[in-house]
Amino acid sequence: MIRTIAIAALPALALAAEPPAKPVSLADLLEASTPAEWRELDPDSTMYLELPAGRVVIEMAPAYAPANVEAVRKLVREKYFDGSFVIRSQDNYVVQWARPEGDERQKAMASVKVKPEFDRAIDAKLEFTKLPYPDTYAPEVGFSQGFAVARDAKRGRSWLVHCYGSVGVGRDNDADSGNGSELYAVIGQSPRGLDRNITLVGHVVRGIELMSVIPRGQGAMGFYEKASDYVPIKSVRLAADLPVAERIPLEALRTDSATFRKVVETRANRREEWFKEPVGRVGVCNLPLPVRVKGV
Amino acid sequence: MIRTIAIAALPALALAAEPPAKPVSLADLLEASTPAEWRELDPDSTMYLELPAGRVVIEMAPAYAPANVEAVRKLVREKYFDGSFVIRSQDNYVVQWARPEGDERQKAMASVKVKPEFDRAIDAKLEFTKLPYPDTYAPEVGFSQGFAVARDAKRGRSWLVHCYGSVGVGRDNDADSGNGSELYAVIGQSPRGLDRNITLVGHVVRGIELMSVIPRGQGAMGFYEKASDYVPIKSVRLAADLPVAERIPLEALRTDSATFRKVVETRANRREEWFKEPVGRVGVCNLPLPVRVKGV
Repeated sequence: MIRTIAIAALPALALAAEPPAKPVSLADLLEASTPAEWRELDPDSTMYLELPAGRVVIEMAPAYAPANVEAVRKLVREKYFDGSFVIRSQDNYVVQWARPEGDERQKAMASVKVKPEFDRAIDAKLEFTKLPYPDTYAPEVGFSQGFAVARDAKRGRSWLVHCYGSVGVGRDNDADSGNGSELYAVIGQSPRGLDRNITLVGHVVRGIELMSVIPRGQGAMGFYEKASDYVPIKSVRLAADLPVAERIPLEALRTDSATFRKVVETRANRREEWFKEPVGRVGVCNLPLPVRVKGV
Repeated sequence: MIRTIAIAALPALALAAEPPAKPVSLADLLEASTPAEWRELDPDSTMYLELPAGRVVIEMAPAYAPANVEAVRKLVREKYFDGSFVIRSQDNYVVQWARPEGDERQKAMASVKVKPEFDRAIDAKLEFTKLPYPDTYAPEVGFSQGFAVARDAKRGRSWLVHCYGSVGVGRDNDADSGNGSELYAVIGQSPRGLDRNITLVGHVVRGIELMSVIPRGQGAMGFYEKASDYVPIKSVRLAADLPVAERIPLEALRTDSATFRKVVETRANRREEWFKEPVGRVGVCNLPLPVRVKGV
């Protein structure tokens, strides 16, 4: 039975410290973590996007894109995305959602500009867990506040990077032409060539698999050609604006915690019997953030 | 209108040579190529996998996995995969297909072993177009015979790497437990940690988007829990075994051609107006192979 190629998959991880007697799963590693190593998602920076297939949870990164996150929050609170649609699904690239072209509210947003936040100054107060492995696109990569980031110490800049599940603000040719009314999520190989060229505002922490199976658009660049192909978005809400009973109490492993460092080490050095050849490396977009429902 | 985030997408590329007066599309670049820069896919190494949604075309790499490619060819010629199923769809990872567990032919294959071909000796006669950019996982990466490959000159080894669309041979814990009767295709972020730990036999050159939208399995590791969830595979054929009229005459850009080098350069250095910050790099898994229907 060969079904155990699956053992090479995401769930199984070995412990970091001494070579263990037997491999320990990621679940074991997380179970051994302390409560202080987890942080609740900030309800003011957490969006629930309701697709016909279920809820997608997006965590925003105000430390990296304060103006754009605030613009998205404002639109969400105006219920701008209620009655919006997934208008684009391009294979190995992005799904994108917006109000339909020509819609009055969409037209009203067309001239609104929000300053681009493609990168930011490195701030020593903003923690950075560096990966000790080379990256194709940036001098340094790692994690900051749960987000995959890159840094260029020489230029003193840091930025969110495009990984599977990253969420960004669509824009036209002008750098400041994005305004949060059109958003995209990455559903394929990390398009790192977009880094520092468009504003990322966060990442999907739950439900990306509901987006990645949305039928691809047949038009250029994956746009749907017929409005009847659009996938309706019933509503988008900030967690903070929902009654507590309707929220999902998610918490994420702190990426500056000892357990997260173990996760990184064990993803780079897989010790399960299945693995034959040591790898010793792991890419910044190959490390999913551990997220769980609090108290479960 | 912000729909033009799409301009940053896969299709638009600028010419490599002199900074052009205006950006030139990938289509223009390919149109300027010479016929000799293209190669027809070898019909003996090209598989057509028929899903309900359409045909998936897989090109195999006999130079990198001769025994495993031969094993797959033999199974295909025995119509082993007619009546097989997609039995697994794990988000951001792989779809996997096989005959259902317990099926007589599946059981008969359970003990068949084919030697692992996780890597091979570097052979100067096998062309290698090296990318001049660093890679997280390997000392060198580039392309060989159309396939994304890595090399370690110190160890004298070369291997196919796991990118979006890569196709491999599922195996159990024993390195030689794969036999070609269970195959997988990558549908998410390149799982490069599998490189040199499992035998890759090729890549999807057409129709990966039919696989990537297959509903995710709800069981562990994306396996379907109910046989009624399986996605049926009507047949798998070698192009060579079909009448010419039923083949798709695909040709791929030679990865050792001048035009492919221009494609690489222009993907690393996007010159369209949309781009604001030079990137100057491109990853081995961010370079899709140009493939077209001959004579169209």
